[in-house]
Amino acid sequence: MTGRDGGADLIAVGNTPVVVLVRPQLADNIGAVARAMANGGLFHLRLVAPRDGWPQEKAWRNASGADRLLDAATVHETVADAVADLHFVLATCPRPRHIIKPVLTARGAAAELRSVCGRDLRAGILFGPERAGLDNDDMAHASSLVRYPLNPAFMSLNLAQAVMIMAYEWWTAEEATPPRYFMTNETKPATKGQLEGLLTHLVAELDESGFLRNQAKRPGMVRNIRHLFQRSDVTEQELRTLHGIVTELSHGRGK
Amino acid sequence: MTGRDGGADLIAVGNTPVVVLVRPQLADNIGAVARAMANGGLFHLRLVAPRDGWPQEKAWRNASGADRLLDAATVHETVADAVADLHFVLATCPRPRHIIKPVLTARGAAAELRSVCGRDLRAGILFGPERAGLDNDDMAHASSLVRYPLNPAFMSLNLAQAVMIMAYEWWTAEEATPPRYFMTNETKPATKGQLEGLLTHLVAELDESGFLRNQAKRPGMVRNIRHLFQRSDVTEQELRTLHGIVTELSHGRGK
Repeated sequence: MTGRDGGADLIAVGNTPVVVLVRPQLADNIGAVARAMANGGLFHLRLVAPRDGWPQEKAWRNASGADRLLDAATVHETVADAVADLHFVLATCPRPRHIIKPVLTARGAAAELRSVCGRDLRAGILFGPERAGLDNDDMAHASSLVRYPLNPAFMSLNLAQAVMIMAYEWWTAEEATPPRYFMTNETKPATKGQLEGLLTHLVAELDESGFLRNQAKRPGMVRNIRHLFQRSDVTEQELRTLHGIVTELSHGRGK
Repeated sequence: MTGRDGGADLIAVGNTPVVVLVRPQLADNIGAVARAMANGGLFHLRLVAPRDGWPQEKAWRNASGADRLLDAATVHETVADAVADLHFVLATCPRPRHIIKPVLTARGAAAELRSVCGRDLRAGILFGPERAGLDNDDMAHASSLVRYPLNPAFMSLNLAQAVMIMAYEWWTAEEATPPRYFMTNETKPATKGQLEGLLTHLVAELDESGFLRNQAKRPGMVRNIRHLFQRSDVTEQELRTLHGIVTELSHGRGK
């Protein structure tokens, strides 16, 4: 199934979800991801700490003409940086365990993404490294997880295939009615960067108070707090309130 | 998105559609196709005239554990041979032109395949070579075409991605209600081999009668006849009748 007409107007697009590849290993796969994205009408690619650096010529060779999409890709040191300007982040995860978050199918995720983008908010989807997938810290940046309905007896899904299924569902969902509006027009969800600002504020105070003094447990505790806030779809209004609460409680300690 | 639990029971399956790769070029892609099939619960692979011969070690290296699926793959010289025992054949085709056949989406195709397999008939899907896709002669073996809803501005779809989307929809369609029953239980569709027998019979008579004497036009005319019969879902009962008609008309010419 091949055509020769790709490329020209690939980037002339509106508000579509960002694909975030977290620690991708193979440039071949990054190219194949770009091709799959273009197939399904996704155009914004971000790379978090690609193993072999960036740019890599192999990616362009494997993208079958989706060059401008790769040209426009940005590189980020951390997941937090890659999602800082987004309002809604999903994380793909074949087998969610011990994480209290909504789990969507690919089709359900596409409907959510359409809904979010239709309200002029910015959305993104995290895909993990080829071998291991996303780790718990990566997933803590997402408000929901995505698990595809696929053969549980054969879970080894190629990275570009995972992106293809999501891109295909995104394209297919174009006409679907948005399934869920959980916000009024009076306020809107905080961006991930704003949320990170709250977490930084909170964790600094918790460090100072001694709450996080057990260094072995500290990373897991911070991650759990991040999970909690991601899950709760915090609005900008609520964020201001939470900042106020953290500041107030810290003062209450006698600062 | 990776797991390490694939392989063991891959082939323990019921009646699932056959994936037919027509003149595939790259063994890498055949391996990636096998992996995608296993992801979506498709297990029967047939290869028509693979360019570099078969088996090819590269395919196994690229299949991420879907080895038994490749081990069981069969090689065929022609599309006709590869589909001879099937009752229902679909052909993937990004831009159907000048072909009078139903065109299904991937989702619609999956529903049809579930319906056919649920009635204990054998189904298959043709995928064309990487560069050019299926040609008109290939598509003449199918009763319906499949065109995916994807970005028309970027049609270059990797072969394994094309199979992945179909396999994903097949898996996802498991619970869906079959959309169409066009047969009663009293008769069933002819296999493609039985249909080919009728065409051979008919073409032989047409050759003898001089109807096909224009050698330049002959291939196109034969193809058009094949298209017509494929489209009409001929039953075994009707096939017997048609054989009788061809024989009768030939005798009428004074044989």
